[in-house]
Amino acid sequence: MTAKAAAPRCAERVLARIAAREARIRAFSAHDPALLRREAACAPAGPLAGLAIGVKDIIATEDYPTGYGSPIYDGFHTGADAACVALLRAGGALCAGKTVTTEFAFFRAGPTVNPFDAARTPGGSSSGSAAAVATGMADIGLASQTAASLTRPASYCGIVGFKPSYGRYALAGVKALAPSFDTLGTLTRDVATAARADAVLKGPLPGAPATTPRAPARIGLCHTPWWNEAEGGTRRAMSRATALLAAHAAIEPVDLAPFATGCDLHATIMGYEAAQALAWEYRARRALLSPQIAGLIESGQRIGDDTYRAALVAARALRARAADLFGRYDVLLAPAAPGEAPLADTGTGSPRFSRLWTLLRLPTVTLPGFAGPSGLPVGVQLLGPRDGDERLLGHAAWAEALFPARGTPPHGDYP
Amino acid sequence: MTAKAAAPRCAERVLARIAAREARIRAFSAHDPALLRREAACAPAGPLAGLAIGVKDIIATEDYPTGYGSPIYDGFHTGADAACVALLRAGGALCAGKTVTTEFAFFRAGPTVNPFDAARTPGGSSSGSAAAVATGMADIGLASQTAASLTRPASYCGIVGFKPSYGRYALAGVKALAPSFDTLGTLTRDVATAARADAVLKGPLPGAPATTPRAPARIGLCHTPWWNEAEGGTRRAMSRATALLAAHAAIEPVDLAPFATGCDLHATIMGYEAAQALAWEYRARRALLSPQIAGLIESGQRIGDDTYRAALVAARALRARAADLFGRYDVLLAPAAPGEAPLADTGTGSPRFSRLWTLLRLPTVTLPGFAGPSGLPVGVQLLGPRDGDERLLGHAAWAEALFPARGTPPHGDYP
Repeated sequence: MTAKAAAPRCAERVLARIAAREARIRAFSAHDPALLRREAACAPAGPLAGLAIGVKDIIATEDYPTGYGSPIYDGFHTGADAACVALLRAGGALCAGKTVTTEFAFFRAGPTVNPFDAARTPGGSSSGSAAAVATGMADIGLASQTAASLTRPASYCGIVGFKPSYGRYALAGVKALAPSFDTLGTLTRDVATAARADAVLKGPLPGAPATTPRAPARIGLCHTPWWNEAEGGTRRAMSRATALLAAHAAIEPVDLAPFATGCDLHATIMGYEAAQALAWEYRARRALLSPQIAGLIESGQRIGDDTYRAALVAARALRARAADLFGRYDVLLAPAAPGEAPLADTGTGSPRFSRLWTLLRLPTVTLPGFAGPSGLPVGVQLLGPRDGDERLLGHAAWAEALFPARGTPPHGDYP
Repeated sequence: MTAKAAAPRCAERVLARIAAREARIRAFSAHDPALLRREAACAPAGPLAGLAIGVKDIIATEDYPTGYGSPIYDGFHTGADAACVALLRAGGALCAGKTVTTEFAFFRAGPTVNPFDAARTPGGSSSGSAAAVATGMADIGLASQTAASLTRPASYCGIVGFKPSYGRYALAGVKALAPSFDTLGTLTRDVATAARADAVLKGPLPGAPATTPRAPARIGLCHTPWWNEAEGGTRRAMSRATALLAAHAAIEPVDLAPFATGCDLHATIMGYEAAQALAWEYRARRALLSPQIAGLIESGQRIGDDTYRAALVAARALRARAADLFGRYDVLLAPAAPGEAPLADTGTGSPRFSRLWTLLRLPTVTLPGFAGPSGLPVGVQLLGPRDGDERLLGHAAWAEALFPARGTPPHGDYP
């Protein structure tokens, strides 16, 4: 199939899926079939021809409104694509629409449901991108992580989540929450697609994707200092994953006790920086902020300057220590979330099992293939050294082949 | 005078100055007396009451359009203040208007003239903020630096430039050029005002300004590996500054030969990242880009991924080495620019004497008080260790008192 034919076929495939699923899933904050068909008619050839993206609504788009999940920006038009969207479109991808985000990528949930169980959260904050990719309404979900906003929805929706090293993808046109951590990444149904998107997003011009599966020699098994918060589903996923990997590579437990302060350091830095980044919304539109985000800002305002700066110094020390870990291990295996997706009325899930890794700025790939006691997806994550993104993608492709196939949501006919 | 009275008086003072000077200087890209008076009528009390800011037009404002110095964004409204503007306004400052920037904070100059000589450049890219502060049309100029965009206009316009440590001021709402370097800072007429603004900009709530002049014990004298590019004005400014400081503190030459690669590393990283950050403008609006910025993007596209990533690693190594320097010196003294402001038809001046320091992410204060062969201002800069911003401001206040008073532009009646 030529690139010219690939785009319209992709558009019709995605439109059919959206027509069948979106009324139940509610993954999109904005979607227009006419726009998608028009884009398909004149899409450039490129390495992503035939793939559709869903764009988390904290990311600017020229055509669709950009609402940041907040009534403050209802119907707001930036008039320009974020750099990541422009790069993906230049690479031949089509934009299926804007996907639901929690308010400013923090805690207040949008309308999206978990594709496996409508009573459960899809996870936040990249809720819509995860649900759209899990149900075939998009092939690449643009997502971001400041605490656990990419890894958690990947785990809850049974898909692949790639949060690259901090700074790898350009953030121009992406709403800031906590600049020390804000990281752009992707949600996909397999590692190969994450690698194809990576080759386009990582630089000004497309490079070669890191597609070769690569066995690691030594794997570090990280139950983490928060293992007591892991539920049955995550405990079982971790032991199954360990057994599957141990048949092919050396795997040994890693003591993360020296990193136990990481969660608190992360919360301190995030609160302080969010209170700065959202200064205008708090000053000029306070009545339109949810109690959750106003609470984050106000707790950030109470963090002393000295406390914040000491946390930055401590975070740097932990990053240096993490670099040493990768002298001994090629990859780390760790839980992706406490367990299955919780009920939607309890929120978007705990960020516990991602805060440390986000603080450390390490690349991570969340892999599906496991299930919890209710039969819902549970993922695990593989982590690599800072800036070792290509190698990590290779190791993840290798592990993906060893793991069980991801589950597909009920109501059939999924890609 | 109460804060309530301070704001309207500030507005009238600035409006009178703008009425007298703006037609010649052309510092503002947008300015509306009615807006300023309305803001003055309901400005909050705060540590910046009685001060007016000029906002470089790569920084978003709720009321004024934000044009990024590009016809692509002519009349564009973001509908929200950047975090820095919101913080300054919450601190009681008034916004005098948007100030001229070069196109996307790169090289294509706007209409602003140098207040000391209309045939000369005010320096780029923070051209309007520098000229407005030098002529009393604003008290605090918001500025940014990716290469030399703050230090150079400070030197050319005879004012104080404070580029803090990378990351100190929130960039939310500021157009990205090269995220590894983009740093927000201020232009003021004295160090005390920079310290007052710093206390507001550095965190979610105002802190105490670092106002106490503090003598350094040891000063490192950095002629830099580019001293052969220093013109007579800068050579004389450096020797006068050295003599004035040597009467009060130990000063000795620092060999920066190990840092000589810094300029090229900076250019590599900046080109690559600018090509990413401006991907949409290049893809969708190429015809509206100047040859200068299109050239930057295209040269960035030609930089290999491996070359870029090697430059990031080398830059980190230089930063570690720079940290060691501050084991021996409290501050470094270095040239701020090659010499006096060049003629406007030659561009906005050479970034040579700032690239290394921007790469190293060090805080820097440019101080005025010297003059070149044509009687135009020439500054020098003092640098401190990363995150040692408060101490550096203290040392700068101390040096400011030892240096000659800054010159004031001709045509009299300046603050």
